[in-house]
Amino acid sequence: MTLAELFPAWGKLTPAQQQAVTAAAALRTVPKGTLLYSGPADCLGFLLVRSGQLRVYILSGDGREVTLYRLLPRDLCLLSAACVLRGLQFPVAIEAEKDSELWVLPARQYQQLMEQSAPVANYTNEVLATRFADVMWLVEQILWQRFDKRLAAFLLQESALEGTAALRLTHEAIGRHLGSPREVVTRMLRYFQAEGLVELAHGAVTLTDTARLQTMADG
Amino acid sequence: MTLAELFPAWGKLTPAQQQAVTAAAALRTVPKGTLLYSGPADCLGFLLVRSGQLRVYILSGDGREVTLYRLLPRDLCLLSAACVLRGLQFPVAIEAEKDSELWVLPARQYQQLMEQSAPVANYTNEVLATRFADVMWLVEQILWQRFDKRLAAFLLQESALEGTAALRLTHEAIGRHLGSPREVVTRMLRYFQAEGLVELAHGAVTLTDTARLQTMADG
Repeated sequence: MTLAELFPAWGKLTPAQQQAVTAAAALRTVPKGTLLYSGPADCLGFLLVRSGQLRVYILSGDGREVTLYRLLPRDLCLLSAACVLRGLQFPVAIEAEKDSELWVLPARQYQQLMEQSAPVANYTNEVLATRFADVMWLVEQILWQRFDKRLAAFLLQESALEGTAALRLTHEAIGRHLGSPREVVTRMLRYFQAEGLVELAHGAVTLTDTARLQTMADG
Repeated sequence: MTLAELFPAWGKLTPAQQQAVTAAAALRTVPKGTLLYSGPADCLGFLLVRSGQLRVYILSGDGREVTLYRLLPRDLCLLSAACVLRGLQFPVAIEAEKDSELWVLPARQYQQLMEQSAPVANYTNEVLATRFADVMWLVEQILWQRFDKRLAAFLLQESALEGTAALRLTHEAIGRHLGSPREVVTRMLRYFQAEGLVELAHGAVTLTDTARLQTMADG
């Protein structure tokens, strides 16, 4: 997919703006596991995902992680350009969770474009609002939800993302997503297994009763 | 203060846009305790705080509350216009925490203004980014901080907001801000009192050692 196909406000740019963006944007291919960004000091730029999957997460002082949200093809990553988004200065990290192709739009240039073009500024607004809502959902999960619900919701989301009921995920990796110690994850997964909701194997979790997991996630 | 003085992008509006905003905006005076907004179904509009103080908070199914952030004079409230901000549809409530004066800008009209004016869209973006950062700070507090740190930080913040060390706050009210049961708040406040950090009276908490509270909040 070209930039023109991926960037929703493209049709509302002037030909000169389109040319400037095309000249400045760089297509970058990164293998799974690449740490793309580790805080506002990395003025990486706006990332438009062409293929693959990114994970945006926060990190505590003692190394615990919690996943904020995922970015899929067509998603625009704003936090990687926090250096030019006044107010958005908080520490997150971004990694490629699958082999990915990204259009990198330099931060200053995108900022200029936002200042010139109301459609670009409004599109950026919409993206920011969506991420804000993702984080609010997480806040509500953390504050109000029991761990069994959070884990059921996480497994269903992973299964939908991967398109399979057989997830290759260690208990430690699940703990990193949810900000929970591995032991807590293992205990709850064993309970899920005893209830016939999942089957566990080394480094793998297979969902065997998605309907009941869904009920649990919704309940 | 007039709209022109309160709205940072005012000077970048055309005379016609300034006239349209002036005609559409309404000054509303609300007493302390007024519930202004209780979710996206209330399409209240954008609120520009002229005086007073608003509290934006979330509510669980069983009635627990957590304060997301406060809005002070000159602040623009966006969540009260979630109906026109695509992506920003999550349930929050907004109350006047002090007697307040608000300019209410109807949602659709502000949306039109954002679509026409890149400066307004960029200003809105900046406000949204700042609130997003406030919520991220809260996420980090909830996930990584111990309750003593959160309570110390909350008491110092309240004291700065009110301009006094003598806070009129019940333990229940503190619990509502922090999303914690009253008993947990009472227990920690008694510990603070025993340590000489605060003095407790009925419905009041007086900070007696702000330096050590600050060390605790930072530590």
